[in-house]
Amino acid sequence: MTRAFAGGYNEEVSCRLVLLRHGESIWNRENLFTGWVDVDLSERGKEEALRAGERLREAGFRFDEAYTSVLKRSIRTLWIVLDALDQMWIPTVCAWQLNERHYGALQGLNKKEMARKYGEEQVLLWRRSYDVRPPQLSPDDPAHPRHDPRYSSVPAGSLPTGESLEDTLARVIPYWRGEIAPRIRAGKRLIVAAHGNSLRALVKYLDGMSEEEIVKLNIPTGIPLLYELDSELRPIGRRYLASDEEVARAAANVVAQGQAG
Amino acid sequence: MTRAFAGGYNEEVSCRLVLLRHGESIWNRENLFTGWVDVDLSERGKEEALRAGERLREAGFRFDEAYTSVLKRSIRTLWIVLDALDQMWIPTVCAWQLNERHYGALQGLNKKEMARKYGEEQVLLWRRSYDVRPPQLSPDDPAHPRHDPRYSSVPAGSLPTGESLEDTLARVIPYWRGEIAPRIRAGKRLIVAAHGNSLRALVKYLDGMSEEEIVKLNIPTGIPLLYELDSELRPIGRRYLASDEEVARAAANVVAQGQAG
Repeated sequence: MTRAFAGGYNEEVSCRLVLLRHGESIWNRENLFTGWVDVDLSERGKEEALRAGERLREAGFRFDEAYTSVLKRSIRTLWIVLDALDQMWIPTVCAWQLNERHYGALQGLNKKEMARKYGEEQVLLWRRSYDVRPPQLSPDDPAHPRHDPRYSSVPAGSLPTGESLEDTLARVIPYWRGEIAPRIRAGKRLIVAAHGNSLRALVKYLDGMSEEEIVKLNIPTGIPLLYELDSELRPIGRRYLASDEEVARAAANVVAQGQAG
Repeated sequence: MTRAFAGGYNEEVSCRLVLLRHGESIWNRENLFTGWVDVDLSERGKEEALRAGERLREAGFRFDEAYTSVLKRSIRTLWIVLDALDQMWIPTVCAWQLNERHYGALQGLNKKEMARKYGEEQVLLWRRSYDVRPPQLSPDDPAHPRHDPRYSSVPAGSLPTGESLEDTLARVIPYWRGEIAPRIRAGKRLIVAAHGNSLRALVKYLDGMSEEEIVKLNIPTGIPLLYELDSELRPIGRRYLASDEEVARAAANVVAQGQAG
């Protein structure tokens, strides 16, 4: 994959977009399914964000606007990056549509315990399939997003209670089309700081990946992913702002730590 | 003043607004005129912001939206407060109209050296008069805001090059009327984190203060100022979220440190 992401300067590039996956959270470290639970970055996750900001600064990046989710591990990642770039003042949108995949009733469970309970195969199916949903949260569950004020303006029927990756795409892509893509077309240089699965949704869409390809793709945390797009927002080039070795190591870390959610 | 700001629960209150002045910056500490120069909070300033956030949290405040300037000492104050409230996700607007008073060619000068150069009386006149402008920045000066990308969308004729307090009001109040007041009328609970003089502008306008009154008013740093407003946004009550002693001490600190800009 890192080879495909290599690429030099291209005349046809009319805009650039940076995607950034937040780093380690406190729950990643404890091997818990996170999803929409609003856990913070660990100290290591903050360091990953700072390193990402430094990479962008060293490469001379400037942004006009930023997008992130309404979850603090992603917002804090963005804040640390904007601080490193000395661009704390740029307009920033926190959108629930960029949240991590909602893991339903699995949220807060330890991945190893869950494997004992449901079987390793079932857990892998939930994590690695495209269209299999986890057990759903009931509306009465205090963890249901309708009880959280940050979702109070979202129609109840639009709030997920446990998503497949396909479901995540079904909310990320309309948001991309309706809100993000028009800003890029208007000439704005954007950074999107988000989560493993909301970024997978964008990558699948932009690169026209198959379902099989996207479930195998592990986006490394804390390494800015640069897309170079033509005027129709079709990717011409894409590359990580890091050496192949760093990308490979970060991707391996993600797999080893089970940072899928 | 602290007596006037006291007030209990009032039935006619239809909305509440919190104003917060950022705390000590690195230049405050060095006694330099700051204005639009984008200096950061000192460690003490960060602690003031954290304490403000804790006061708001302890008093049970929640906000729907936040406004701040495009200067990092104010943005960071807001970030620290939103983090303490666990509300990092609320919509936040960074508006240049809420910036500190622009101190023109005085920016970056040491207040004591300036007093030696221009005379104590002239410096006091600049700092404490309502309508006296400081020496202007020339358009060719690298410090002119037209050279700063954060003001690239502002018409050149609207960019200040050295403001009196009256000039500051002339940009803050239209922003209040056009952007902030409609959000309050729409029922949004707002926090405005800003600067000594942009907040003076709001206080003068809301309270119908005279020019003489407002130049004497020292808003303490780091202490949330709560306005209770009727449906016409006329103040019914206002008070600092701190004891009278704390407010008096903070206001005295502001005077002693010369934190006027």
